[in-house]
Amino acid sequence: MITSVSNERVKLIRTLQSQAKARAREKLFVIEGERLLVEAVNAHAPLRVVFHSGGLKPPQRSLLNQAARLGATVEEVSPEILKACSDTTTPSGMLAVVPWIEVPLAAPLEFVMLADGLANPGNLGTVMRTAEAFGVQAVFLMPGCVDAYNPKVVRGAMGAHFRLPLIEATWPEAQARLNGFRLYLAEAAEGTPCDQVSWRGRIGLILGSEAEGAGALAQAAATARVFIPMPGKAESLNAVVAAGILLYQAARQRRSRS
Amino acid sequence: MITSVSNERVKLIRTLQSQAKARAREKLFVIEGERLLVEAVNAHAPLRVVFHSGGLKPPQRSLLNQAARLGATVEEVSPEILKACSDTTTPSGMLAVVPWIEVPLAAPLEFVMLADGLANPGNLGTVMRTAEAFGVQAVFLMPGCVDAYNPKVVRGAMGAHFRLPLIEATWPEAQARLNGFRLYLAEAAEGTPCDQVSWRGRIGLILGSEAEGAGALAQAAATARVFIPMPGKAESLNAVVAAGILLYQAARQRRSRS
Repeated sequence: MITSVSNERVKLIRTLQSQAKARAREKLFVIEGERLLVEAVNAHAPLRVVFHSGGLKPPQRSLLNQAARLGATVEEVSPEILKACSDTTTPSGMLAVVPWIEVPLAAPLEFVMLADGLANPGNLGTVMRTAEAFGVQAVFLMPGCVDAYNPKVVRGAMGAHFRLPLIEATWPEAQARLNGFRLYLAEAAEGTPCDQVSWRGRIGLILGSEAEGAGALAQAAATARVFIPMPGKAESLNAVVAAGILLYQAARQRRSRS
Repeated sequence: MITSVSNERVKLIRTLQSQAKARAREKLFVIEGERLLVEAVNAHAPLRVVFHSGGLKPPQRSLLNQAARLGATVEEVSPEILKACSDTTTPSGMLAVVPWIEVPLAAPLEFVMLADGLANPGNLGTVMRTAEAFGVQAVFLMPGCVDAYNPKVVRGAMGAHFRLPLIEATWPEAQARLNGFRLYLAEAAEGTPCDQVSWRGRIGLILGSEAEGAGALAQAAATARVFIPMPGKAESLNAVVAAGILLYQAARQRRSRS
């Protein structure tokens, strides 16, 4: 049982949790909790290390056996070590080191999201989870976005990392790959109401930064601006709520073929 | 200039920030930041105390003058005191003590939300902000909800406290007041798709707890269950995103009179 923070694996995990540069160099990230480990195993992710703090029930034992078959070194650690490795104040009983996943792109690519300068990690994670729920086929991570393997993004995305392709790109790169797409920029109150545009065909939804909106390159790339009609008195919606509503509206139209 | 944490006003503010019981006893709460103070002034809230840390620009001076005309004692405090009074790690330059607001109920009451056991303060705040945006006329705070004057709720609600009636109620009380309403319970995957029910007429949307769903009394009170159709692989949506989508769908139908 590992009980020392100077253990090499412990040091690796703590570095991965806190440093985006280390995650990029090693192409690894950390997942926490049984639920995410189940998602990783279901996706046949080539797990590297699994730490747990003992007291396992039979289904958890079976989960760790599956992780081991995927290549993971499974180790029991003291609760103190798990806490030292965790990004949360109340760590769940297990965490794992996973390589960055290259989720294969669907073909044909028809419905994507572009996150421009989404700096809040909880927001990016929840947006990824929501995008997956509504059938988005890939998320383009544009300049200014928080690192998608940040522990708070991973927590909010609820396993989307294992199923949703993530593409880091500059605006010229994204525009070249999305040639022929209509790119809709989410605005607070400008442009066309979101239920008055067509969401069918090849569509990219551009989300801007929570605080400053979309950048100049995103604005230039957009083929239309859309907003959510609001009858009430509030001036704006939370960025994540707005993204959810636009994705719902898009999915609703794309589903009904009439 | 106040520089001591043993000042009576400082002690009051710190107690209000940290203790729901003190907020309920005094019927007061704390708002932080210029934006919320603008909302309070626009709502003619009878402000009690405003603390600021100096260095004011002309529009801020004018705002504090308006606050003073509404009855506030305006005081400059040291940055350390402002930090000691703040619920955030990076306090903005001002905060204020405000009485609980009794926002008058619209008549006829037709579109309400019932929050059942929403325990996460950021979630309740964002749900209140979203409810206001989509024309909800009152939010019923059912048993198990976090205190609506919790500083994180106040931050997330972005001024909804000044415009949206809040009603604390038990289930029998709410059912008596909402006699004749159709009460739709938000579910993850059970019931009727949310775009296949009628949202017109007298409607109450019931939101359950993030972790455990709605309680037994909420389930018994519901006249129908609704869910958000999701074409993708994710199992569920974040509670706040789901609430936003249902409110959007409801508002969209209620707006179009066809």
